Amino acid sequence: MFSYAITASAGRARAGVLQTPHRGLETPVFAPVGTQATVKTLTPAQLDELGASLILSNTYHLFLRPGDEAVQELGGLHQFMQWPGPMLTDSGGFQVFSMSKTRKIDELGVTFKSHIDGSAQRFTPEKSIQIQENLGADIIMAFDECCDPNDQAYSKIAMERTHRWAERCLRAKTHPDQALFGIIQGGVNPELRAESAQFIAGLPFPGIAIGGLSVGESKEEMYSTLDLVTPLLPEDKPRYLMGVGTPEDLINGIARGVDIFDCVLPTRLARHNAAFSPEGRLNLMNLAFGRDPRPIDETCQCYTCRTFTRAYLRHLIMAKELLAGTLLSIHNLHTLVQLVKEMRQMIVNGTFEANLPALLERWDNNSGEGIENREK
Amino acid sequence: MFSYAITASAGRARAGVLQTPHRGLETPVFAPVGTQATVKTLTPAQLDELGASLILSNTYHLFLRPGDEAVQELGGLHQFMQWPGPMLTDSGGFQVFSMSKTRKIDELGVTFKSHIDGSAQRFTPEKSIQIQENLGADIIMAFDECCDPNDQAYSKIAMERTHRWAERCLRAKTHPDQALFGIIQGGVNPELRAESAQFIAGLPFPGIAIGGLSVGESKEEMYSTLDLVTPLLPEDKPRYLMGVGTPEDLINGIARGVDIFDCVLPTRLARHNAAFSPEGRLNLMNLAFGRDPRPIDETCQCYTCRTFTRAYLRHLIMAKELLAGTLLSIHNLHTLVQLVKEMRQMIVNGTFEANLPALLERWDNNSGEGIENREK
Repeated sequence: MFSYAITASAGRARAGVLQTPHRGLETPVFAPVGTQATVKTLTPAQLDELGASLILSNTYHLFLRPGDEAVQELGGLHQFMQWPGPMLTDSGGFQVFSMSKTRKIDELGVTFKSHIDGSAQRFTPEKSIQIQENLGADIIMAFDECCDPNDQAYSKIAMERTHRWAERCLRAKTHPDQALFGIIQGGVNPELRAESAQFIAGLPFPGIAIGGLSVGESKEEMYSTLDLVTPLLPEDKPRYLMGVGTPEDLINGIARGVDIFDCVLPTRLARHNAAFSPEGRLNLMNLAFGRDPRPIDETCQCYTCRTFTRAYLRHLIMAKELLAGTLLSIHNLHTLVQLVKEMRQMIVNGTFEANLPALLERWDNNSGEGIENREK
Repeated sequence: MFSYAITASAGRARAGVLQTPHRGLETPVFAPVGTQATVKTLTPAQLDELGASLILSNTYHLFLRPGDEAVQELGGLHQFMQWPGPMLTDSGGFQVFSMSKTRKIDELGVTFKSHIDGSAQRFTPEKSIQIQENLGADIIMAFDECCDPNDQAYSKIAMERTHRWAERCLRAKTHPDQALFGIIQGGVNPELRAESAQFIAGLPFPGIAIGGLSVGESKEEMYSTLDLVTPLLPEDKPRYLMGVGTPEDLINGIARGVDIFDCVLPTRLARHNAAFSPEGRLNLMNLAFGRDPRPIDETCQCYTCRTFTRAYLRHLIMAKELLAGTLLSIHNLHTLVQLVKEMRQMIVNGTFEANLPALLERWDNNSGEGIENREK
């Protein structure tokens, strides 16, 4: 039900297809994030039109509201939010551990407080799997402990707990129509990362995620960790780099053998009036765009760029019209989805490695600086 | 360029077609309001899909931001907001006169303060026409004085000034590709209304609006004013009832010979989590909808009703997701646009009068109570 086939490769970069119960998924792929069972401001029709294939949603948020049992009663997440394609839920681990002041970890699980009403809540590996089974995404994630990458001593503790919890998640899982991916931790310590990659690769997960990156480490640390980890992973399983990223990170990730990405950055930038472009990240609130008749990106084929001027987008922003967020979200998501599709085509055509320097140059100056890249 | 043809009638109700430089416009018609060159939260593609034909935009708001000269430089309002169909701009009169505490009226015009930055601004009939010519809508409106309908003494003063200003607007107009509609005032005083209807009907306007209604008078006063006014108007000119309304008002207005309506109510209700339905106006925040798998209206063919459950819409509202406003706007606008189209078909088929009681019963309990029905 979840067979994965590599159809072409270029150096360490791969093009493949993951079969899921909801359509086949071409990889590499960038997944828009629909935290609360909605990719902010967009309809499923708009997501489909901009080229999205895989959508991520958040276990922590849906557990609290509307509740995983309500989603199950309403036919599961696909039916609830009316996304007909492949879906992925995270485990809730990242959100829970990011509440560093108010959560308590023990060997069995984590106790935390709801950000909605302050009520005490508890996640365990088994509970996370149960929630994700109720939600019913195609790909579900092991419950892991994500820690500060610079705390080397604690990275080892968190990694070892993540390994024990990975085994518990595998035992807890009951639904054959869901693929459970394991998660590698180990901070930015090469020995820990290698140990974690080998441990997780040795368990019967149909896909493997690289967690604990894009959480405050440097770009060099992220790339060197990928350089270390991906060669240790089996060729025949999809690899998912969680919470990444920027155009530059996608290019570097794919070149290092990553197949799946997700990030809130494109929609969050949109709500901060910012747009990806080959000219660099644009702030559409700038006065300079007040009478600019050009689209955000003249080479972009998204609905926003086919239809509207920078001047109109700036007007919507200045007038505090919500349509601005919708139109910038369409553009930013389309840019990443399309960039990844173009790289896939280059891998298939055998031109990826030759194009790599030009891709990196074209998409520099499009960082996520100043913007949180995960939904907490 | 603006020929108007009545193709069928049923009692006082009429079905017609108004030719405009941007598509022919079938009447009766309900126009969604795009105050700031955007129907709040919706793309032009979504407006087209929900069946909108005529879109209204506000002179007062666009004059202040981004400025009518900026819109002109960017190709005019159709090009700026990318609405390819007929458009209408109001004159700014309603917004200016609603600032009752801070504006000053004299015979030449009105001085007022910008709601954005408090700067002193001035509108005259000539200035309003100039702004509307810069904006470039197909239908533009005379600059009128809208007053408290219950102030009978002042209603006469305002009406007489409106008449003098109507003549000035006609003289000021220079663009042959825009149709200037005159506006009838006179509060709820039958003699004044009759006088105003006859005066405005006697001027060479290609269309006639009934202003000063839906501003605080009772339903009975509004309907009796329509009963008085429409028989005094020429059959061969379209009639526009400004700022109306609810489903009930549209039915009653069409039965009394009105051809064009606009109102912010459907989009404003959407932002208050409310939806039109044959069950009565629904507040989608209600707990009762938490696991309700039905659409808002099982008989509705809009994208929202074809796609989503009440439970999902309630979830979006509780989670403060902006998609709720988009989806409810689609539904509420489609409901009014479609209701008016159905009435047009009944007029053409000769079944309108027989269906009138059932229409009124089907759409009762869908008031705008508690919601402002104009953009100030």
